[in-house]
Amino acid sequence: MIGYPNNKNVNTTKSLNHVLNYNQKGMSFEERINKANTYYLDNDIAHIYKKPTPIKVLKTKQYNQNFQRRVEIQKATFEKKSTTDYNGVYKGFYIDFEAKETKYKSFNIKSNLHHHQRKHLEGISKHGGVGFIIVNFIAYDRAFLLNINEIKNYEQSLLKIEFFEENAIEIKQNKTIYLDYIKALDKLLKKEYNG
Amino acid sequence: MIGYPNNKNVNTTKSLNHVLNYNQKGMSFEERINKANTYYLDNDIAHIYKKPTPIKVLKTKQYNQNFQRRVEIQKATFEKKSTTDYNGVYKGFYIDFEAKETKYKSFNIKSNLHHHQRKHLEGISKHGGVGFIIVNFIAYDRAFLLNINEIKNYEQSLLKIEFFEENAIEIKQNKTIYLDYIKALDKLLKKEYNG
Repeated sequence: MIGYPNNKNVNTTKSLNHVLNYNQKGMSFEERINKANTYYLDNDIAHIYKKPTPIKVLKTKQYNQNFQRRVEIQKATFEKKSTTDYNGVYKGFYIDFEAKETKYKSFNIKSNLHHHQRKHLEGISKHGGVGFIIVNFIAYDRAFLLNINEIKNYEQSLLKIEFFEENAIEIKQNKTIYLDYIKALDKLLKKEYNG
Repeated sequence: MIGYPNNKNVNTTKSLNHVLNYNQKGMSFEERINKANTYYLDNDIAHIYKKPTPIKVLKTKQYNQNFQRRVEIQKATFEKKSTTDYNGVYKGFYIDFEAKETKYKSFNIKSNLHHHQRKHLEGISKHGGVGFIIVNFIAYDRAFLLNINEIKNYEQSLLKIEFFEENAIEIKQNKTIYLDYIKALDKLLKKEYNG
């Protein structure tokens, strides 16, 4: 137990375990994807961005700071309906995906992917884009890229890791880019899109 | 002058003129683009969305409403660096554009398009996507779609309407979709991308 300046005692073992379970590399799953995207952008490999969270601004206040007019948002709400987390362009392909992780040994597609998100990704695919999900199994420390077409008309809700081994492409993790999903994407493009 | 219930008197002639100048169809330029995008989405023509404005949330408050937990944002700021307004997929092409309008007879590219937005659109184009700007001249009630490559390495800041007539594709406006820019995009794809 460590005594913090604010007198809050923290059980370090428990905290550390939590961090280690959640994330072997000191970064959350989302941070690792963002880091990969930054690497791809900086090295002119792909332009893939995290879409901003849709927020409805209700009340703002203008003020001056260093002779510049600034706006502060004083009231806002998160808008419910968003599409997916990431989109962009790679090798001329429109890329659109949602990233999810699970602590369970199966991935519950229905509770993790909203119906409208699934429809969105299917629509992207129909229009010649590449729509997929990236799923991270914390328990196995394994991540997979699954083309949305693989679960089109698929009625089961629970997808076991064997399903991913068979139908998805595993994302090899490395120390530079962490979640280097573009190599898995390359395999998908080669196999399904003549890329 | 009309007496409004809140005792605010409004000069209707001036207000109406303002509305008419700004927008011949009772809708702002952005609303007309959003309406076109909704039409394209509903009719399964293209998936093109307005990107949410990037907002940095600083303080939230949780509360219960109808037995559901809700989150209200109490403090936030607009993040400065955004890329462009719209992106999506059409006929397998990654589409990315910024929409601007001007009340002047020339379009000032430097004051209307940030350096990083121009670089972003050029990057999109380099990776096989279609990056462009849509410019609406209020004074002429004419809108144009200009491929970003047309102004690559272009040093002039003021672009006259003649420049657009020569290098851009005019967007024909109609009563159903208002700003039916996909037809102009079709011409661009045919001419430049074998689309």
